[in-house]
Amino acid sequence: MEIAEELAKQQKAISVAEFFEKNRQILGFDSAPRALITCVKEAVDNSLDACEDAGILPDIFVQIKKSGEYFQVIVEDNGPGIVPEEIPRVFAKLLYGSRFHTLRQSRGQQGIGISAGVLYSQLTSGRPTRVISKIAPDRPAYYCELMINTSKNEPEIIKAEEVDWERPRGTRVEMEMEGSYVRSRRQSVYGSLKSAAIVNPHARLTLVEPEGNVEVFERATESLPKKAYAIQPHPEGIELGELIKLLRYTDKKKLRVFLKETFSSIGTISAQELCKKADLDPEAPPASLDHDEAVRLLLAFKQIRVKSPPVDCLSPIGEELIRAGLEKEFRLDFIATTTRPVSVYSGNPFLVEVGLGYGGELAREGRIEILRFANRVPLVYQQGACAITHAVESVSWKNYSLSQSAGSGIPVGPAVLLVHIASTNIPFTSESKDAVADMPEILVEIDLGLKEVARKLRRYLSRQSLLSERREKEEIIRKILPRIAKKLSDVLDRPEPDIGPVVAKIMGNLLVYRESEQQDGRISVRLVVENHSDLVRSFKLHELLGEKAEAISPPAKVISLGDGYDHHWKLSVGPGQKAIISYQIGANSSGPAKPVVEGLDPEIVTGARAI
Amino acid sequence: MEIAEELAKQQKAISVAEFFEKNRQILGFDSAPRALITCVKEAVDNSLDACEDAGILPDIFVQIKKSGEYFQVIVEDNGPGIVPEEIPRVFAKLLYGSRFHTLRQSRGQQGIGISAGVLYSQLTSGRPTRVISKIAPDRPAYYCELMINTSKNEPEIIKAEEVDWERPRGTRVEMEMEGSYVRSRRQSVYGSLKSAAIVNPHARLTLVEPEGNVEVFERATESLPKKAYAIQPHPEGIELGELIKLLRYTDKKKLRVFLKETFSSIGTISAQELCKKADLDPEAPPASLDHDEAVRLLLAFKQIRVKSPPVDCLSPIGEELIRAGLEKEFRLDFIATTTRPVSVYSGNPFLVEVGLGYGGELAREGRIEILRFANRVPLVYQQGACAITHAVESVSWKNYSLSQSAGSGIPVGPAVLLVHIASTNIPFTSESKDAVADMPEILVEIDLGLKEVARKLRRYLSRQSLLSERREKEEIIRKILPRIAKKLSDVLDRPEPDIGPVVAKIMGNLLVYRESEQQDGRISVRLVVENHSDLVRSFKLHELLGEKAEAISPPAKVISLGDGYDHHWKLSVGPGQKAIISYQIGANSSGPAKPVVEGLDPEIVTGARAI
Repeated sequence: MEIAEELAKQQKAISVAEFFEKNRQILGFDSAPRALITCVKEAVDNSLDACEDAGILPDIFVQIKKSGEYFQVIVEDNGPGIVPEEIPRVFAKLLYGSRFHTLRQSRGQQGIGISAGVLYSQLTSGRPTRVISKIAPDRPAYYCELMINTSKNEPEIIKAEEVDWERPRGTRVEMEMEGSYVRSRRQSVYGSLKSAAIVNPHARLTLVEPEGNVEVFERATESLPKKAYAIQPHPEGIELGELIKLLRYTDKKKLRVFLKETFSSIGTISAQELCKKADLDPEAPPASLDHDEAVRLLLAFKQIRVKSPPVDCLSPIGEELIRAGLEKEFRLDFIATTTRPVSVYSGNPFLVEVGLGYGGELAREGRIEILRFANRVPLVYQQGACAITHAVESVSWKNYSLSQSAGSGIPVGPAVLLVHIASTNIPFTSESKDAVADMPEILVEIDLGLKEVARKLRRYLSRQSLLSERREKEEIIRKILPRIAKKLSDVLDRPEPDIGPVVAKIMGNLLVYRESEQQDGRISVRLVVENHSDLVRSFKLHELLGEKAEAISPPAKVISLGDGYDHHWKLSVGPGQKAIISYQIGANSSGPAKPVVEGLDPEIVTGARAI
Repeated sequence: MEIAEELAKQQKAISVAEFFEKNRQILGFDSAPRALITCVKEAVDNSLDACEDAGILPDIFVQIKKSGEYFQVIVEDNGPGIVPEEIPRVFAKLLYGSRFHTLRQSRGQQGIGISAGVLYSQLTSGRPTRVISKIAPDRPAYYCELMINTSKNEPEIIKAEEVDWERPRGTRVEMEMEGSYVRSRRQSVYGSLKSAAIVNPHARLTLVEPEGNVEVFERATESLPKKAYAIQPHPEGIELGELIKLLRYTDKKKLRVFLKETFSSIGTISAQELCKKADLDPEAPPASLDHDEAVRLLLAFKQIRVKSPPVDCLSPIGEELIRAGLEKEFRLDFIATTTRPVSVYSGNPFLVEVGLGYGGELAREGRIEILRFANRVPLVYQQGACAITHAVESVSWKNYSLSQSAGSGIPVGPAVLLVHIASTNIPFTSESKDAVADMPEILVEIDLGLKEVARKLRRYLSRQSLLSERREKEEIIRKILPRIAKKLSDVLDRPEPDIGPVVAKIMGNLLVYRESEQQDGRISVRLVVENHSDLVRSFKLHELLGEKAEAISPPAKVISLGDGYDHHWKLSVGPGQKAIISYQIGANSSGPAKPVVEGLDPEIVTGARAI
């Protein structure tokens, strides 16, 4: 017998369940603490998806219980429920689901997640998973106990019965497994629910920890996020093999109809154009195209610019929520955000959102924190494997006022980054969905987003450093000038001069001062504003007076404040220019407080209070 | 209709081929350059495995050709060939193979690799893969063209025929795909073949690049690596679910026989012990054990220490080859290596080997390079995701004389690390097999291995820095003392003193000097050795004389060297002690050269030549 014939005897098909039983680290079950986190994450993602599909505000209950040597993971939701016939396959068959074949943003896309939890549970505890689900108030709840037959990747129903359940609708799953409960910052059940709550403010998440402690992440809004609609594939970046398959299996009879109906963003006119460009008959049956003709059609896709994919297949977090999320978690001095336009990789629309927080109570030393999200799901593990991290590492942060050792890598400084990728198909590096793969198109978009917020940070910081330099300079001047002035006045025996104007001139400030004289029992006031800077200064000038002034020039807007009147002027004073305001008040009127300037930094104003 | 019923309509099974068609980044096809590298790697791994299984020295030919818009990847080997019936499934069915169900070290373990290449090829070029294989000189070669039916994950044979082929045995595969050929340092077809050659010195690898350039990585040895034998699973770390499955499906009738035959490292005695510990009847049928009894048995596995798994399921690279590999690639001043003992994670035996190179022409700035290998396959991508990297990052390298920014992360300095993990089942983070998952047991072993070589480095460097400090100090003393001595001798009009003893005292050196006097026409020599250090110095002292000395005390070993005689003494001199040797020679004997000290560094010896 030949060697090859000997070797052939060992060849054998591998069931996908067997494969993952042996390689469960690929599913995110590589350590005891992580197993619990992964399980909870998969169950909660399913609940959130189901609630959103059904238009229900999610109310999700998570409990981790110690049960002898093992842990029990319980996740219960108020979602639409699952019909009894589908339950076994939804929970106990890998590669089964409703979202894989649809092009729209959702958390679950692979059809693996929760079954992976069931697989790990039966592998480590030897116990079946218990599911209860109810699809309407007037229907009975369905209870079953499930295991996966790993050699076939098919569900095994250990027990099934109708039961009473107080909920009108919902699903509850209970799994027992090896685990270890930790409560560290991010890499914990608590941490990942907290992160999930930030980007899902429409959900109420309740966590009961093993020691009985209850944490509720309350809903911050009653409105569901923008619904993501399923779309057709976009012609940009589609592969030849995919195109050939679509051409072969379509039920459309004519090429131009096929183009219009199969793809998003192709209309009647662009379909005609594409056929012309590719030198193909628009009336030809799609299945009749040979390999070369398909290549020409693909080439035409690249040559004719079709419009971007419809954005409604995606549901971004939004700049406002990103800002709110960062503010909720950190005390910050500065936040910048951006949402990039929709882009496409291999026919899949995606967009990138970035938030950057700076200063406040963030640590000055050490690498910055990166919060990664994909389709509103926090990514907790495998930071080093993620396109988000790689994009952060390859920005030259020194150009944007953050330090970076050896010219690359995660920058160092008091900053935090939040990056969210939304897509109809997130290209994860593995089934554990911890890290986004380095697709070139996605790296480019993250890079652009990072640089946008980085530029905003640089502007903020250079302004800050300018202002703090000014502050130091002015402080010195303010300390030294009065002494000189005092010395001089003593020597010359003359009254001490007001040093305000001198300071304003040296500092290039806006100088505000009053001149007044008694006239016919009334006081005439001249309010002078001198701009000693090189820039046009636009601002509002307020005078708070005990009475309404008269003979006001130029005219002011006057507002009664109860115990007095606010007079204000909108002014714009060019560099080196001055503005003069005059008015009259009664001689016995209470002397006005300092004038107030609104809209300029205090550092550049002398002689008035800046707000 | 209830919402759940609407949603149920979209539920659908997903074929594993469809899954990977959509998520091909998981298989290592996320960018054009990487696609070619991944394809070549999978094909070459298969060839190497097949050759080793058949006991053939591998001779593998790789060619990358430009073909219009696409690239052609050709890999041909002199292996045992594949029987015609198996070819379609080996190349065009995911999750099919001979190594998944066996516990021994091999490159391919998942049954996905080459079919992933075929999948990517048909997806991007729309073309079938061409395979030729021949299993014996007297059999015809079999040729076929294959595609994968992705919705079923089954092969589609486009064409099949018998053909003539000049080889006696072997397999050739040709795929066409989108790609981009780069030739950068490691992340290239060239780079990954070069790395593969280092750890597979028994293979000849030939690469023909698109421009026609031919690179041959010649075989460095004619002997095949140690064969890895299949073993039974080891009881350590086995999961309860796995144990229950084994109990249920075994054909053994008695528990004690089941234990002995199913597991490695369990003999008749330990089987009895286990049963006793678990309070189980050794004669009971394994399938009769209930859940609690299985739990008890698992607990007994943990309580009774069974011996380590047999090492012959693994084929480590070996310290010698690691050293040679590092020397081949880098110019280094220092190399340390270590091979850790066999350990077990989840029932899978594994071992870790580490090599560390330092100095030479390595860059002083920048992070160190890490060469990662798993089962003799170089890991090229996803360094940041890998347990090897994570283990390197969490060592405090400052304790081992390398710098590290922010106290963690990849260290900085002129060093290179090579880490190899050998296992019956490498726990990769994904099917692309780029990174090893963070299994706690593996992290511990890598950490221990790293620290072993790091300690050796620290010893080497502290010795180096001590020596270089001494050298500097001595140089200064040697320059200044003579001037002082000269000055003094001038002033006092006395002969210049020998400064050797003073230097030795200051430096804490071993001082060697001779005193001699004429007596009765002969010369009596006293050879004095003073140890000024704090340590015991053990060494050989040589006197090369033109004649055999007489009245030698203590006695010396004398060896004729042709033109003279070597007299040597083994000495051990304590701190602050001295040794005195005396002998006589003829008065007209040629004066001896400097004495020679063997076994000590030149820096710590004064008055003698150290070798």
